[in-house]
Amino acid sequence: MEMTHFMLDRPHSLIPLTLFAERYGSAKSSISEDLGIIKEVFEGEGLGLVHTLAGAAGGVRYIPKVSLEASKSFVLKLIHQLENPERILPGGYLYMSDILSEPRILNEIGRIFASAFAERNFDVVMTVETKGIPLAYATATYLNLPVVTVRRDNKVTEGSAVSINYVSGSNKRIQTMSLSRRALPEESRVLIIDDFKRAGGTIQGMMDLLQEFKATVAGVGVFVESAEVEEHLIEDYVSLARLRGVDSKSKQISVELGNYFDE
Amino acid sequence: MEMTHFMLDRPHSLIPLTLFAERYGSAKSSISEDLGIIKEVFEGEGLGLVHTLAGAAGGVRYIPKVSLEASKSFVLKLIHQLENPERILPGGYLYMSDILSEPRILNEIGRIFASAFAERNFDVVMTVETKGIPLAYATATYLNLPVVTVRRDNKVTEGSAVSINYVSGSNKRIQTMSLSRRALPEESRVLIIDDFKRAGGTIQGMMDLLQEFKATVAGVGVFVESAEVEEHLIEDYVSLARLRGVDSKSKQISVELGNYFDE
Repeated sequence: MEMTHFMLDRPHSLIPLTLFAERYGSAKSSISEDLGIIKEVFEGEGLGLVHTLAGAAGGVRYIPKVSLEASKSFVLKLIHQLENPERILPGGYLYMSDILSEPRILNEIGRIFASAFAERNFDVVMTVETKGIPLAYATATYLNLPVVTVRRDNKVTEGSAVSINYVSGSNKRIQTMSLSRRALPEESRVLIIDDFKRAGGTIQGMMDLLQEFKATVAGVGVFVESAEVEEHLIEDYVSLARLRGVDSKSKQISVELGNYFDE
Repeated sequence: MEMTHFMLDRPHSLIPLTLFAERYGSAKSSISEDLGIIKEVFEGEGLGLVHTLAGAAGGVRYIPKVSLEASKSFVLKLIHQLENPERILPGGYLYMSDILSEPRILNEIGRIFASAFAERNFDVVMTVETKGIPLAYATATYLNLPVVTVRRDNKVTEGSAVSINYVSGSNKRIQTMSLSRRALPEESRVLIIDDFKRAGGTIQGMMDLLQEFKATVAGVGVFVESAEVEEHLIEDYVSLARLRGVDSKSKQISVELGNYFDE
């Protein structure tokens, strides 16, 4: 049971078997047996995969993975909540801050993103303030990565920063975003996570900003994308849900599964 | 092992034993035996307490608790990191965004706050954007509570909001904060979490804002408080570390344990 918790706490890290042997004072052979049981339970419970690497530099690695099926049934429940007409705000906006305020929901979305991107290698998860932040942290927890937060302003407590102006795709307004020089080592591989994507102007802005850090965007994940856009500024992204439309008159919201669930 | 994970995932919730019995198809007596083992391991490993409530409305509740000793040794390690002279920013500010970017560190701080406030009853955890957000979510995860985020601006995607002006205690600048009407039910009991506190103007602002919601502030937790203030606007709070001073000339930063560790 101690081993279980230790592994759940350290996803994507290679844990040498000698560490377990020392920590729990058991023989390597009994550790291997225990790992066999843990592997079965993790895979049976849908927690994820347990990879064992043989050899002197070997060990065990826990990779959080939610099955596509379990992810789908979870997202369908969220879609049902999102379609509640009381969410319609003036201007046809959709209120979803309550969903993004529940750690249990966020952690599950984080696990799904971590599953979607489990095979790619990243150095950091990146988001822009404000509503994407908890999603980025939830995802980063399951990928065991640090989070880099792009600011809308340039704060004195961040030290010297790189700022760029960008045009928000939907309302064509010029906005600024900035990232502390200290926050991101050069040539990092970055996973961008955000709560909502319309045309993708904000994400495109982050990509432009990342060029200043010689970084590579190796993945983009958004919780909800809007289908109500003429122009798509970015093509390669994973979405969990897609907002088809908000009809303020008939009080109807239409949300469907995102491209992560496409065949 | 399944039960362990189920409980770790649902802190502070009363889980009826019948739920376990149904879920894992075992007799209640063997569930009770398993819980005895889980209780021993949780308490031995420093994960927290396991309370069992007898009777028809009974069940089991996992309360995350880090011992004061373990918390102290963890915070002392962070203090050592905080005292690195490379953190000094122009103006004598202290760079600490990197520490607040690591999910493992955040989760541990969250567990410590959840331990500090385990006995009080809250409905929500509240913070103000930006840097307090991940700390608030980490704490909320271990208290199993939703998070309410106060915004510096008033966003159209939040619906109607209550805004107040407040004076930031340290630089006497007038600032605005706002909270969506939908975000917080009236008469909620609130735990305020923030990353840094100088005089406490921002926290005082949140308290004033909460009056508009007839809410009660039942606890305040800050990661680092500054000792370099003349006037303390709030008295009742828990701090994990205290910044004594930053000397830009001699390149020295002095940080000590916060009031949580006072005798």
